[in-house]
Amino acid sequence: MPLIECVPNYSEGRDKEVIEKIVANFKDKDGVKLLDTSPDEDHNRTVVTVVGEPEPLVEAVLGSVKTASEEIDMTQHEGEHPRMGATDVIPLTPVKDITMEECVDLSEKLADVIGSEFNIPVFMYEESANRKDRKNLAKVRKGEYEGVKKRINEDGEQPDYGPKKMNESAGATAIGARKPLVAYNVNLSTSDVDIAKKIAKNIRQRSGGLKNVKALGIYLDDRDVAQVTMNLVDVNQTPLYRIQELIKIEAARYGVHITDCEIVGLTPVEALIDVARYYLQLDSFDSEQVLENRLLE
Amino acid sequence: MPLIECVPNYSEGRDKEVIEKIVANFKDKDGVKLLDTSPDEDHNRTVVTVVGEPEPLVEAVLGSVKTASEEIDMTQHEGEHPRMGATDVIPLTPVKDITMEECVDLSEKLADVIGSEFNIPVFMYEESANRKDRKNLAKVRKGEYEGVKKRINEDGEQPDYGPKKMNESAGATAIGARKPLVAYNVNLSTSDVDIAKKIAKNIRQRSGGLKNVKALGIYLDDRDVAQVTMNLVDVNQTPLYRIQELIKIEAARYGVHITDCEIVGLTPVEALIDVARYYLQLDSFDSEQVLENRLLE
Repeated sequence: MPLIECVPNYSEGRDKEVIEKIVANFKDKDGVKLLDTSPDEDHNRTVVTVVGEPEPLVEAVLGSVKTASEEIDMTQHEGEHPRMGATDVIPLTPVKDITMEECVDLSEKLADVIGSEFNIPVFMYEESANRKDRKNLAKVRKGEYEGVKKRINEDGEQPDYGPKKMNESAGATAIGARKPLVAYNVNLSTSDVDIAKKIAKNIRQRSGGLKNVKALGIYLDDRDVAQVTMNLVDVNQTPLYRIQELIKIEAARYGVHITDCEIVGLTPVEALIDVARYYLQLDSFDSEQVLENRLLE
Repeated sequence: MPLIECVPNYSEGRDKEVIEKIVANFKDKDGVKLLDTSPDEDHNRTVVTVVGEPEPLVEAVLGSVKTASEEIDMTQHEGEHPRMGATDVIPLTPVKDITMEECVDLSEKLADVIGSEFNIPVFMYEESANRKDRKNLAKVRKGEYEGVKKRINEDGEQPDYGPKKMNESAGATAIGARKPLVAYNVNLSTSDVDIAKKIAKNIRQRSGGLKNVKALGIYLDDRDVAQVTMNLVDVNQTPLYRIQELIKIEAARYGVHITDCEIVGLTPVEALIDVARYYLQLDSFDSEQVLENRLLE
């Protein structure tokens, strides 16, 4: 049974009635499971986490985009988080029995309906991007609703789907297939943030470390400890154990060690299976040997 | 959603038609999922692995016991594996959102119907045992069909449910709730089986090692290596990482190390999460953070 995770963001975090109307599109639907609804009043934005089979998930997402476009007026929207549309962003992540290519296909299917039927301009990002400069969502959304509205009919600024002008009240939407992202934090036996910064620099991709690792060194005020905080953009290719062991090695040179770690939010089970495979030296362990995985077939 | 794993064993491993009739009880039933059917011709026995919600699982198991009692004649049965009934043994294991006590209750419910309606004597073993000397299945089944038949109406030998005499054709059945069992093998960098035997002795419960660990040292002919082969009867209380690290420590004294390991068959995901918790030092990781676990709610 193919499964996709979708984490759409809507530009309403205060009006409970509107949020409930949007989220209702994911409730009591066969083949769709609502995992989480996180409204944020300061951001004036709601992040929904839902998992489902391709067809019913696409239907439910389209329903929610329609509701959001009817209930949210972007000309009146204020909030701290960058945003450009009522349904601001729709990321799709393959979970099980589905390829990234198939998720890209589904993102295009979504974009086509949202563009042509709902009359909302759509930008494709990450794995769904048709242009290199659209891979990064922050670049696509630069200037937010107001900025995108101004430049949307200029050459090279036009959307990938839908009208070449802003939908006044619904704004524009970004849709992208992407790999699951794991947020991973490692706490050190020191309060010296400089050590955390040095370790972060040594282990992250952009300064010569591990591919797929974004890392920063920060200081945690409440615990008085230094932390290496990471976003892991491909835990299949660069698994948690490799990061953990490399941090140990880098920490040793500063005479510090790891005190504890945390995975923030959700993780695919495969990321943990890879950890067990490494430390238990399980050469031939198959994910199908996990009882719970068999129940999702 | 409470889930139970059931691994019933039936005394027919050769006649495909009979096996299919028995297994049909687990197919296309809401709330019941057939994971595996393993017939063995030498043993003349079929092991079925099924997972389900309590009510529908009990119904399906009862259906299979009825079919087996109609299709299998124990007076004609021959096979290498010890056996005493058409449905020989029904182990129930809690998987999710259900306690061991509730599994014991279900085992009693099963036993009551099998005893009173199907007229088959039932012995309760493991966690369902009412007497200490019935905890061990091997003891309950001692002498097999023929032996049990002879002594079943003697004092102290009578079944826990059902008639106090053997059901000629269906035999007797053992039912027991038990913890999930994980089969774990560790291969060593030596072909010296004595080293594997010494390590097995040092790490297993009965000779002063870890609780919940049964271990033997054996020699693998095809690979020319010595192996510590284990049955882990409670991986929650005695997790895999602790066994792995203790074997490393014991192996070091003989100048050998672990080359590779294997988990045989199914394992509950919690066993692997515990491994990740230890090696990644995840103090506060909750199973609910595993995306796939959320899908089983």
